Amino acid sequence: MSNFREIGRKIVGVGRNYRAHAAELGNQVPTKPILFLKPTSSYISQGQKIKIPKGCTSLHHEVELGVVIGKHGNDIPETKAMDYVSGYILALDMTARDFQDEAKNKGQPWSIAKGFDTSCPVSEFIDKSKVKNPEQIGLWLKVNNTMRQNGNTKDMIFGVPYLISYISQYFTLEAGDIILTGTPSGVGPVTAGDVIEAGLSDLVSIKFEVEKKGK
Amino acid sequence: MSNFREIGRKIVGVGRNYRAHAAELGNQVPTKPILFLKPTSSYISQGQKIKIPKGCTSLHHEVELGVVIGKHGNDIPETKAMDYVSGYILALDMTARDFQDEAKNKGQPWSIAKGFDTSCPVSEFIDKSKVKNPEQIGLWLKVNNTMRQNGNTKDMIFGVPYLISYISQYFTLEAGDIILTGTPSGVGPVTAGDVIEAGLSDLVSIKFEVEKKGK
Ligand SMILES: [Mg+2]
Ligand SMILES: [Mg+2]
Ligand SMILES: [Mg+2]
Repeated sequence: MSNFREIGRKIVGVGRNYRAHAAELGNQVPTKPILFLKPTSSYISQGQKIKIPKGCTSLHHEVELGVVIGKHGNDIPETKAMDYVSGYILALDMTARDFQDEAKNKGQPWSIAKGFDTSCPVSEFIDKSKVKNPEQIGLWLKVNNTMRQNGNTKDMIFGVPYLISYISQYFTLEAGDIILTGTPSGVGPVTAGDVIEAGLSDLVSIKFEVEKKGK
Repeated sequence: MSNFREIGRKIVGVGRNYRAHAAELGNQVPTKPILFLKPTSSYISQGQKIKIPKGCTSLHHEVELGVVIGKHGNDIPETKAMDYVSGYILALDMTARDFQDEAKNKGQPWSIAKGFDTSCPVSEFIDKSKVKNPEQIGLWLKVNNTMRQNGNTKDMIFGVPYLISYISQYFTLEAGDIILTGTPSGVGPVTAGDVIEAGLSDLVSIKFEVEKKGK
């Protein structure tokens, strides 16, 4: 499934899946997963730049474990969920926080805030065999060499099997689809010229530069 | 582009693009397009049934003109926008209105409300050559033979070239992607056993039955 960027057709994001992150944005801890979508046109890989979209004055980084779906399924029971996982990625759920705040205030969709072009920088595919327990992985993010996020997937509110089961009740999952499992605390703004580095335990690391769109 | 269901990777919906529909749900007329995403896993074609998702008690019909994108583009100027259109579809933007109302009240994303499996029933592809002016087409929808929506795309607030240009500033458009251009007034609930018929001028008509999911 190393070609998830080409064959996958959706990216399902999970909001506020770490208590400390929900709190830092002044949000309640959710009682059910908060789901949003990013289009696959938002993917970039190392070597491409994160572009601040037109009008955005507060672009935030969110480092996340991404789950790569390996086969078609819906209404997947939690006990079978891991059979649908092909592997993992490290991803940044880049978020136009000002656009999202406006959307939240107006009761409008988050789609532009979460899904603008370049909003989903991703690592290479990591085969499932390399990850003993997806709910016991450290993940970190630095901006210009300063540590900003340093968490562990053990702090997720809803774990991987639960998320797969819950999401697949509403959205049929297909090979190459991605689930972004939420971000630990420490999110914050980046501006043009900043360099983001992030890592998932000793499995993979990524590096992306930020620039203004239209440059 | 008759294979848009297979090759397309996103469905961009436009909310409140007809004044009378914005008013009927108690919403302001927007000053810029309100965009949301439905995943391609939400497509169904005639012969498949619309399934009311688990927990939904108010599933609404919305009949819409869909624009089928023919080629890759971003930051498309309005004057060139029609070059990116391959054709059209008639689509239903089925909406779990109770889920959407909850999302709006909580400032949460609309993704499940708009994107659940079977939420995007579509017609066959209609080649662009058959449509002289996409902003001068009648569209109607009947539930159990009673007319519920009967509008014309001339009443859209944001026209097709403007939408393509606006959307492509944020989301790169690709061949097979769909833009759902919004619904005229007359939306309302359907329940299990109802039959929805809809038409786009004399170009195409579609018919879908509604059932509860899990039947
Ligand atoms: Mg996130
Ligand atoms: Mg949304
Ligand atoms: Mg609609």
